[in-house]
Amino acid sequence: MEAPVVRARRDNSLWLTEEQTDHMRLSLKVSDIIFQKTTPWQKILIVDTPEYGRTLVLDGAIQLTERDEFCYSEMMAHVPICAHPRPARVLIVGGGDGAILREVLRHPEVETCTLVDIDMEVIEASKKYLPTVGCELENPGADVRCMDALEYIRTTDERFDVAIVDSTDPVDFAAGLFQAPFYRDIKNILNPDGMMVELTESPFADTALMRQAVRQMRSVFPIVHLYWGAVPTYPTGMWTYAAASLAPDPTTPLRDVPGTRYYTGAIHRAAFALPPFLSELIDAQSH
Amino acid sequence: MEAPVVRARRDNSLWLTEEQTDHMRLSLKVSDIIFQKTTPWQKILIVDTPEYGRTLVLDGAIQLTERDEFCYSEMMAHVPICAHPRPARVLIVGGGDGAILREVLRHPEVETCTLVDIDMEVIEASKKYLPTVGCELENPGADVRCMDALEYIRTTDERFDVAIVDSTDPVDFAAGLFQAPFYRDIKNILNPDGMMVELTESPFADTALMRQAVRQMRSVFPIVHLYWGAVPTYPTGMWTYAAASLAPDPTTPLRDVPGTRYYTGAIHRAAFALPPFLSELIDAQSH
Repeated sequence: MEAPVVRARRDNSLWLTEEQTDHMRLSLKVSDIIFQKTTPWQKILIVDTPEYGRTLVLDGAIQLTERDEFCYSEMMAHVPICAHPRPARVLIVGGGDGAILREVLRHPEVETCTLVDIDMEVIEASKKYLPTVGCELENPGADVRCMDALEYIRTTDERFDVAIVDSTDPVDFAAGLFQAPFYRDIKNILNPDGMMVELTESPFADTALMRQAVRQMRSVFPIVHLYWGAVPTYPTGMWTYAAASLAPDPTTPLRDVPGTRYYTGAIHRAAFALPPFLSELIDAQSH
Repeated sequence: MEAPVVRARRDNSLWLTEEQTDHMRLSLKVSDIIFQKTTPWQKILIVDTPEYGRTLVLDGAIQLTERDEFCYSEMMAHVPICAHPRPARVLIVGGGDGAILREVLRHPEVETCTLVDIDMEVIEASKKYLPTVGCELENPGADVRCMDALEYIRTTDERFDVAIVDSTDPVDFAAGLFQAPFYRDIKNILNPDGMMVELTESPFADTALMRQAVRQMRSVFPIVHLYWGAVPTYPTGMWTYAAASLAPDPTTPLRDVPGTRYYTGAIHRAAFALPPFLSELIDAQSH
């Protein structure tokens, strides 16, 4: 007897679509919706995706996925920390998901890491639903504060060796984080050999932001270098970062960090080699 | 008198969607359809997109866009040619659009460049509709042949210094281009200090192909190195290439090439610095 013909059932087709620009969209199939909440600051969405695993979305923009966040987190954390001679005190602006904090705490040289994020709900959701990401948010070496980072920076008496600015995209309350007044406030809370890094978006999708951030950083800090790497789920997959320093050379790693999946000393040096189209974008005169 | 209220007209919303994997899609807004044709080999589509300019699509996969093809074309052409001591004779397998040919012909050391593509319609469409890409297809230094490259390689008496394998994705008639018998055929038409490069897909989207290609290449060539770069419109934006050599070191550039937008000697060296997750993928034992 032949087996009965069974029509294959179709899966429910649920897709997360990010409008990366007005003319470009990335869509990921969704297998489960894990968490949704609208806070005073943003809309939080956590979903499971077959392509990239668990995925955190804020206001429609993918912030991180379990499968590729190491590309971003490691390049934000290890480049400034490995290039700093004594990275004892580190500040993370934003970064409530805890991914960069986790990387910072790999360094035995780091004595305290202060994380200031405006939205407690992101911190709580990451601890609960993104265990590989939020795993260090209760580490005793982490000083996690829920408040407006701009206000914290203007009022604190603390001083830092490294500041890592892990903001959302430069819209709404995060827009001020890419301008000279903010960079001056950061400079004021850095020690004399301090260093900062900040994401500066994609050179294909948001050229204007990248140029503005670098130009304004250069008006405040004596040493500013752009570097880049791959982050598959960010627009265009080619992602840039700016490192600004009061003294140490951000392009040269001084020590190693074990257990990384993207970062190495060779990758650190390589990331500062810019394709000509990219160096021309930041060096050209602009309006 | 107040101006009359005019409802903004909506644009026609036409999108090109590539199913990059079963669970991930990239969509580009389309402003115009320029050319469509089904050949014995594939479906050709050329569209204009606001995000990336004119775009060539074969069988649903984006092959190149005017705005980002230099990332891919330069890394395919200049890495092997700049690392070869005497790159007089170059072979391009596939590449009928002419983008890599254009880059190869920048090198005064190259005496002839033979391009063998199975589909004359791609060559003709590129000359006509992609002028910045197909511009050198009638250059007297280019020997453009329309035939099955596998057959050409098995039967030709010509010998080459550099072979560049610019195939479509490893399905259908291109699947054989990522296996040891093909690499042996390529080796047979290389001079004793010959070198080849081939695209090996994304380490996030097609890990299996990348591992297979590198493993089979290593069974044929004494020197095989993976390198990588950004190509925004290819799946995940992080793209890998394999360089196989009979003698010269592919990782070391011997000369410069003017007028590039992605490639430099520093980028050449940097591209061989692999993130640990990537080197582990190709060095691990696999089935």
